[in-house]
Amino acid sequence: MRSLFNTAGIIGLGRMGQIVVDRVLAAGHDVVAFDIDENAVATALERGASGAASISDVADQLGDEKRIWLMVPAGDPVDAALDELEPSLASDDIVVDGGNSNFHDSIRRAESTDAAYLDCGTSGGPAGAERGFSLMVGGPEWAYDELTPVFDAVATGPDGHERMGPAGSGHYVKMIHNGVEYALMQAYGEGFELLANGRYDLDLEAVARTWNNGAVIRSWLLELCEEAFREEGNDLDGVADYVAGGSTGTWTVQEALEQEVPVPLIYGALAERFSSRDMRFSRRLANRLRYGFGRHEVKRQDESE
Amino acid sequence: MRSLFNTAGIIGLGRMGQIVVDRVLAAGHDVVAFDIDENAVATALERGASGAASISDVADQLGDEKRIWLMVPAGDPVDAALDELEPSLASDDIVVDGGNSNFHDSIRRAESTDAAYLDCGTSGGPAGAERGFSLMVGGPEWAYDELTPVFDAVATGPDGHERMGPAGSGHYVKMIHNGVEYALMQAYGEGFELLANGRYDLDLEAVARTWNNGAVIRSWLLELCEEAFREEGNDLDGVADYVAGGSTGTWTVQEALEQEVPVPLIYGALAERFSSRDMRFSRRLANRLRYGFGRHEVKRQDESE
Amino acid sequence: MRSLFNTAGIIGLGRMGQIVVDRVLAAGHDVVAFDIDENAVATALERGASGAASISDVADQLGDEKRIWLMVPAGDPVDAALDELEPSLASDDIVVDGGNSNFHDSIRRAESTDAAYLDCGTSGGPAGAERGFSLMVGGPEWAYDELTPVFDAVATGPDGHERMGPAGSGHYVKMIHNGVEYALMQAYGEGFELLANGRYDLDLEAVARTWNNGAVIRSWLLELCEEAFREEGNDLDGVADYVAGGSTGTWTVQEALEQEVPVPLIYGALAERFSSRDMRFSRRLANRLRYGFGRHEVKRQDESE
Amino acid sequence: MRSLFNTAGIIGLGRMGQIVVDRVLAAGHDVVAFDIDENAVATALERGASGAASISDVADQLGDEKRIWLMVPAGDPVDAALDELEPSLASDDIVVDGGNSNFHDSIRRAESTDAAYLDCGTSGGPAGAERGFSLMVGGPEWAYDELTPVFDAVATGPDGHERMGPAGSGHYVKMIHNGVEYALMQAYGEGFELLANGRYDLDLEAVARTWNNGAVIRSWLLELCEEAFREEGNDLDGVADYVAGGSTGTWTVQEALEQEVPVPLIYGALAERFSSRDMRFSRRLANRLRYGFGRHEVKRQDESE
Repeated sequence: MRSLFNTAGIIGLGRMGQIVVDRVLAAGHDVVAFDIDENAVATALERGASGAASISDVADQLGDEKRIWLMVPAGDPVDAALDELEPSLASDDIVVDGGNSNFHDSIRRAESTDAAYLDCGTSGGPAGAERGFSLMVGGPEWAYDELTPVFDAVATGPDGHERMGPAGSGHYVKMIHNGVEYALMQAYGEGFELLANGRYDLDLEAVARTWNNGAVIRSWLLELCEEAFREEGNDLDGVADYVAGGSTGTWTVQEALEQEVPVPLIYGALAERFSSRDMRFSRRLANRLRYGFGRHEVKRQDESE
Repeated sequence: MRSLFNTAGIIGLGRMGQIVVDRVLAAGHDVVAFDIDENAVATALERGASGAASISDVADQLGDEKRIWLMVPAGDPVDAALDELEPSLASDDIVVDGGNSNFHDSIRRAESTDAAYLDCGTSGGPAGAERGFSLMVGGPEWAYDELTPVFDAVATGPDGHERMGPAGSGHYVKMIHNGVEYALMQAYGEGFELLANGRYDLDLEAVARTWNNGAVIRSWLLELCEEAFREEGNDLDGVADYVAGGSTGTWTVQEALEQEVPVPLIYGALAERFSSRDMRFSRRLANRLRYGFGRHEVKRQDESE
Repeated sequence: MRSLFNTAGIIGLGRMGQIVVDRVLAAGHDVVAFDIDENAVATALERGASGAASISDVADQLGDEKRIWLMVPAGDPVDAALDELEPSLASDDIVVDGGNSNFHDSIRRAESTDAAYLDCGTSGGPAGAERGFSLMVGGPEWAYDELTPVFDAVATGPDGHERMGPAGSGHYVKMIHNGVEYALMQAYGEGFELLANGRYDLDLEAVARTWNNGAVIRSWLLELCEEAFREEGNDLDGVADYVAGGSTGTWTVQEALEQEVPVPLIYGALAERFSSRDMRFSRRLANRLRYGFGRHEVKRQDESE
Repeated sequence: MRSLFNTAGIIGLGRMGQIVVDRVLAAGHDVVAFDIDENAVATALERGASGAASISDVADQLGDEKRIWLMVPAGDPVDAALDELEPSLASDDIVVDGGNSNFHDSIRRAESTDAAYLDCGTSGGPAGAERGFSLMVGGPEWAYDELTPVFDAVATGPDGHERMGPAGSGHYVKMIHNGVEYALMQAYGEGFELLANGRYDLDLEAVARTWNNGAVIRSWLLELCEEAFREEGNDLDGVADYVAGGSTGTWTVQEALEQEVPVPLIYGALAERFSSRDMRFSRRLANRLRYGFGRHEVKRQDESE
């Protein structure tokens, strides 16, 4: 840990980026902030950051030994930001990608940039504003060590961040974290679905609260279940049975296929999401086949609920 | 095989029962037929059977060494028929239950009747009218041997029936047959769903036909898929994605739980049926939890397709 | 909550029973304790309980308005204890079954005893000694209210126990808790299996610790994963890939079948346990079928692994 | 269908290639055959083909309007053969890839060759020698039409081949065929595993035979099950519970992930293969976690099975 660390450049000031700004400022460091949305920059200024007029202006303001945290959407925006930074970067600079990038992209970017590149999986969501995030970091050890004060500030503390290994390993571990997350959500969902459709008329918020106090399955996700029942009611009846998202879960299953590691629960949770979005052709066929071999009446499209 | 066999009593003249009547008559035996629906009895008379006025009248007409085939719905109707027959039955009589009874019930019935009781799983559906059924028979060996001429007639021939073992084993094997059937249907369904939603604009009837001619996965169910696409069109668009039924699949999974044998595909196919019939609470919860930890927008009930 | 509550009878002084004794004593109540193991009774005496010579002696010592907590193994031991207590019980007595009983048994017992019967699902394991358990209680409201001081003491506090509903509901909710628990364990297991077999050489304890500090999937089970890697090493190489247990998970799936609620992840986790214990016949057949249609070499028994 | 078709070049004379040679010869066409294994060429000569000294010699012997069938292993061998052919190929030549290539490769090859390229999924295995194969063909319509006499000969007849669509579609449909095949094998396997471990002492060959005669689940794979029990015995006890292979199933799941189509049974069957090959880390962790929360004894490595 070097004492020289002083000013961080933070690019991308959405919900997560603002939290990073706030936590870095609160830890006593300076921040140069930029976002394509001027209002977001204005907010950062109010919180105590300096503003920048462009991505390259962030680099210019940081001088030598730049430490830059990208908190922009995964995919093209990361490459665009790096392209603009690249002319200013030298081998003693450090760029952190704190977004949800695919680890293959992170490996490629680490290889193509002159700076030290840290891929940083960030978990905890908006709730991280208060308690800090969990940070899974990949990349050069010296760069990780150098940024320890920033990671201490953005994470829940020293135990909330760790260097996982070389380039890509941070986003790799984060990807698998998300795959597990899908399965945990689905597991709780199955339990509550059975409780909601079972023999007893249960208060699901009370069930979740009781479980969260001492039961083996207590967890932060279960606290969010408790909150969901409190805020949406016992039947969640305003909530659609449609689950969006799925990219990190898909990546997890793809990697598991390449590694030949069976992940039936993670796959099952992902398939449930796909299944929630569409008519199921396989069901139509099964419906019709039951007529084919058994003359069971075909349920027609407009009859199904 | 004794040459004495002459007349069969057949109780229950629905679609399957009429086929049994026809095939037994065609093999040169006599039939005494009964159903609570007089029209069904009239049909059997036209085909060449003798009619009976009641279940006990069937027994009366058969004289000594009664051979009676029940083809009534599983559950209470079987017990009701047996109750009415019981006073007439002696230990040299034979009763066959050709329906889809639970094997536990068949064991119980075999123990409580004075007659020899054969539980006979029957597969093949209406198509069995022409080619005959597959018959899986449980119960006393002498009774199975005695009825060989009837089984030869009702089945596809001597290879289409077999004594599986003691009481209950016929319906046990049939139960597991049906569990496998659920999984096969779902497996084909997944394949066609991917073909229907994949990269190419395919003629699914032609795919099924090509597969049915020489491919490893050719089967009778695949012939029924071919028929389904021919009759319902490539998109099955008039067919609901709702799958009814499920009792024999449920029994199969229950038995697999008792035997601690993992049957993930059979279970998956059964769960798909349950899932096809209802809103999924687990999806509502997952939808809401994604807001809880990530502030992803909650899809509301009326927005989902 | 009545102020009259004073002395609890506690029958069954295994690991969990002793914790109940300790926590009830610590809350300032008196305890009359019994176990068939005299050493266990001796331990309870050292902690400050009074001892009893038999189950009926517990009842005798408690006088009117008996409050008795059973912490004996599920199944016959519960019925045996109730049989011995029954002659002493009146309608203003209360019996709590704190074990892992099947909810069907609890309903039956509640109907057949003269006392008020509370079925109490208890979660938290040995760790509950310090922080208290999560208690899911079914049965008459007055009895639950009456025992609030005891539940406050045994649970983590007032939020750690709740009356779920009428007879059986406590063990019902606990059963489903356990089903979810199986799926959560398997979900974490899949994630760590992929990490252990993936592209990076990772310190799994460090991964678990980082996740436990702020990540979405943090939980008590994940803390136990962290502990497992710390105590058993990164490869868990002394630990067999064999998972025992399964009764409550089996009950959960059975209930889900009856309610026609799909629980594919809970089923998958249970099937994984069954699968861990035995040769898989289905794999043998698949191995051989690949020869059948493709002349792929059959792997023979002694060649595998 | 043009009458001009006369001589086919066939490259790759393994088990499948020899069958193609035989069937094309039997249909009255001439064959120029090549394989790197001289013995394989010698066999083809005995059957009536002409031999070639190299891949380019095949092209030389065919003259104008070359029709060449590749039956070499998927992957590099296909590219190597195409590289050697390329200098000789013109736009009125036709190359068929009858192997198990990935459809992405087939699209790429179709784009890069001067000839018309037909990707031809071939199913039926060695049994196809007698009855012919099922052929799923992708590529230009004129080339498919031109080769109809060859496809008629190699397939079971006109119904056993079909042009599925443009480049890649033949191998695409074959890939999904194989995915379904995995699931069918596993479905039968689960059924027989339950029969083998269930309540009755059953003759599994007799079960399979009875099912194959008239039952809904009759199929060619079930005939192979029957054969397996006949040849290996009721317990398959010389057969390892280890399933090799998996590439086409993996491709199917990858494609399903990209198309967001849920294929839980196909995935489950593939995961079962992966699972059959290795220690399961997830089971080790579950074993240890049960100690963590419940002090259930940890089963140690040398104690299992």
